[in-house]
Amino acid sequence: MKESLDFIYKEQRELSLLGGISALLGWDQMTYMPYKGTQERSKQLALISRLSHERFISDRLYKHVKKLSNQKVFEKLDESHKIVVKRLKKDIEKARKVPSEFVEKLSKTTTIAYAAWQKARNENDFSLFASHLEKIVELEKQYCEFIGLPGHPYNNLIDDYEEGMTVAKLEKEFSYLKSQLIKILDKIKTSKIYITQQKFDKTFDIEKQKKICYIIMNKMMLPKERARLDVSTHPFTTAIGDDDVRITTNYNRNNTLFSFFSTVHEAGHALYELGLPKGKFKYTVISDAPSLGLHESQSRFWENMIAKNMHFWNYFYATFRKIASTQMSDVSIEQWYLHINQVKPSLIRIEADELTYCLHVILRFDIELDLINEKINVKELPNIWNEKMDKLLGITPTSNRDGALQDMHWSNGNFGYFPTYAIGSIYAAQLFKKISQDNINTYEEIEQGNFVNILKWLRKNIHKYGRSMTAEEIMKNACGEGLNSRIFVKYLKDKYYSIYDV
Amino acid sequence: MKESLDFIYKEQRELSLLGGISALLGWDQMTYMPYKGTQERSKQLALISRLSHERFISDRLYKHVKKLSNQKVFEKLDESHKIVVKRLKKDIEKARKVPSEFVEKLSKTTTIAYAAWQKARNENDFSLFASHLEKIVELEKQYCEFIGLPGHPYNNLIDDYEEGMTVAKLEKEFSYLKSQLIKILDKIKTSKIYITQQKFDKTFDIEKQKKICYIIMNKMMLPKERARLDVSTHPFTTAIGDDDVRITTNYNRNNTLFSFFSTVHEAGHALYELGLPKGKFKYTVISDAPSLGLHESQSRFWENMIAKNMHFWNYFYATFRKIASTQMSDVSIEQWYLHINQVKPSLIRIEADELTYCLHVILRFDIELDLINEKINVKELPNIWNEKMDKLLGITPTSNRDGALQDMHWSNGNFGYFPTYAIGSIYAAQLFKKISQDNINTYEEIEQGNFVNILKWLRKNIHKYGRSMTAEEIMKNACGEGLNSRIFVKYLKDKYYSIYDV
Repeated sequence: MKESLDFIYKEQRELSLLGGISALLGWDQMTYMPYKGTQERSKQLALISRLSHERFISDRLYKHVKKLSNQKVFEKLDESHKIVVKRLKKDIEKARKVPSEFVEKLSKTTTIAYAAWQKARNENDFSLFASHLEKIVELEKQYCEFIGLPGHPYNNLIDDYEEGMTVAKLEKEFSYLKSQLIKILDKIKTSKIYITQQKFDKTFDIEKQKKICYIIMNKMMLPKERARLDVSTHPFTTAIGDDDVRITTNYNRNNTLFSFFSTVHEAGHALYELGLPKGKFKYTVISDAPSLGLHESQSRFWENMIAKNMHFWNYFYATFRKIASTQMSDVSIEQWYLHINQVKPSLIRIEADELTYCLHVILRFDIELDLINEKINVKELPNIWNEKMDKLLGITPTSNRDGALQDMHWSNGNFGYFPTYAIGSIYAAQLFKKISQDNINTYEEIEQGNFVNILKWLRKNIHKYGRSMTAEEIMKNACGEGLNSRIFVKYLKDKYYSIYDV
Repeated sequence: MKESLDFIYKEQRELSLLGGISALLGWDQMTYMPYKGTQERSKQLALISRLSHERFISDRLYKHVKKLSNQKVFEKLDESHKIVVKRLKKDIEKARKVPSEFVEKLSKTTTIAYAAWQKARNENDFSLFASHLEKIVELEKQYCEFIGLPGHPYNNLIDDYEEGMTVAKLEKEFSYLKSQLIKILDKIKTSKIYITQQKFDKTFDIEKQKKICYIIMNKMMLPKERARLDVSTHPFTTAIGDDDVRITTNYNRNNTLFSFFSTVHEAGHALYELGLPKGKFKYTVISDAPSLGLHESQSRFWENMIAKNMHFWNYFYATFRKIASTQMSDVSIEQWYLHINQVKPSLIRIEADELTYCLHVILRFDIELDLINEKINVKELPNIWNEKMDKLLGITPTSNRDGALQDMHWSNGNFGYFPTYAIGSIYAAQLFKKISQDNINTYEEIEQGNFVNILKWLRKNIHKYGRSMTAEEIMKNACGEGLNSRIFVKYLKDKYYSIYDV
């Protein structure tokens, strides 16, 4: 028993270290790497990925895990070992279902597809990408067969990002959410405020943006000795070590304070990473997030529930105005609040407002399901995309670059990933409701820029569990129920009917 | 034969990739990593180092190398394969002498020692570092036993950085050099110019320094798509890939244009890295420098022979003055040339002038020898350092920060490294003499800021050989002789007797 335990902990420790190394290689590629380093960097990443995978699916590791899972042995284990062994066994058994040749084939196909997608997007020509996407859809279907979960084949794809989530559950939640979002949007569109709303035309120079980002990171208690902020094309968060989490932003987007809200968003992810269980669970499969949806709930929570909240700006507007100086002298706090919460159907998901965002996600979920179900084929995709955009948001892309070619996810073979963005938004609303109930001073604290109790609550109810439970179990434990889009819809109605005075 | 060749090239390829990964982990630690990331970083570095070492000393690799080294097989190999197999065999046989556990222990010890050194230096408290250094000295001695080269134990330490170099040879060259440097220094000290020389009190703000650094990198033809410049406490160069070389500088030292000369220095290293043999030798043991001394000759060459040369400033002073603007308006080119070549015994090696620099190196060489010989112990080090400084340079540090704590090398376990700095200076003088003979227009080209032929010469006579020969063989090939401090001394006398008019 001792030998098996030692072995599985040693292996997990080294796999964690390799994971951090891989994260650094990726971070550097997106931030500082000289342009021509790309070729060799992809080889370095592939090597670490292969070394990790070989180690994870090795017969030796599996043998020890099975030994420890044997009922007689398992019963004698400490509680924390039980949690680790159970989790590890499930992960390994899933990974071992997929033949190495398939992993390699998928990796090669997506590498080529990613380059094709970039070209297709640059040249606004979907046909350059279509045959690659067809191959990927076929491989995704094969993958579903390898895993073989019960129910809809697409369950196998969601499960990689959101363990335990199913098509049945999502269709139920998303169909309600979709109809409600369209209703709310229609209602808002009739309001005088909507009809007369203007595009905000202020811009802030990079030094000012930076200053504001560092202030909010500090306010959110992201410790600078364990975290840092850099610049990349697309903002992201990555954990290189337990005490080394990196976030990025982009100061050059022509969207007022994109950098500020993206920094808050990524800092929310980073706080989660820094709050994951250590101690007995350090360097184990437990010290990680159980799902992307729960991870996204943390970023959405800070971005939408906190930083787009009027109480927050009652606190922060003075600081913000002082730094922005002349640009903001003629903008009242009410105008500013309206601006940052402006609802407006738009073509690009990552630039969408809080209300319409989930419609972008549901569109992608519907398309993925239909592709896996063979109800539609890849060639029809641009038209289907445009029709759906019109139906959901009342606008139609005039180019595929702003339509079916806008996201990189499919070229990477990340089917089942998109739904987690909406799950994150829903969970965030559920968490905010519960925090406000548990701590009746929440709004006052936000007005004082005091996030200590909020972070404490998240640490205690979400972060500390890592992967010892599924996301849904953690949510049930924290809020008394799993995914519930009704709470999110209620939150949206309260907020946006008030803003638009309808 | 085919199977063995395929295997040894595959292994070298993956070892090269792991080497680049390790370089990135190190670069990041010195530049951007949040402070608390240190602990885990040391584990990541140790893991990669162990994985590489295990692979390098594996029986399987050695078996194939021996198979290919068998005379009958070897004779049939292509010339390039012969070079690779020979070099690889020698490297493996040396590496197989050192147990893996030792390698990992050394790596862990030094990463922690590096953090301790930083703290000790910041707090000017040698005692915080002493116990770490003691451990390292013990490990270095153990290492010498593992390798077991003939002669002085310290030969084993030099050999890692300067293959084939020995204590006997170095003592001979260094004793001549030491006596000559002291003599030259004494003579200069009597000159009127020395007696009346002033400290240059101009400073340049960081943005101006940066601008000048980027201009010179560009002039030196360091391609920005394959190289970048960042900031660290101590400037360094590291190669993360064939097309990804990083250099660093420091803009905050209170030494006029430290950043400029250190950038030129590191860019010299970077040009060498980018010029190493590719093609048949890509991802092999050949595509590397044969010694640190030869590497240092490249940086010293650009720093001293080029950028501290009057011909260079005849070209560059106008550009420099324009950027420096007001600060330089009352400084003539002659005054500037005198300033950047001012001889003045000082406490910090990396801020030392060209003449006294090697005395700093010889001091460290003497101390390392005595530590390995057990003639002195670590606790005495600060006092011994100060006494030696007084003897060689006539000055004494008032704090250990400016004394025994100034360099990071010992914290990294780099015993045997320091002598290579002096070797580099000597080689650089030899190379400059030879280039000036081979290309009679060298001075004119420098006056025009045209370094094309100089770089071409270095590429052709030094860079392209990689490790296909030892440094000494390459020097003999290029200049007709190996290490010769007489040429360096002659160069110094010519330059400094003229500057000081003695």
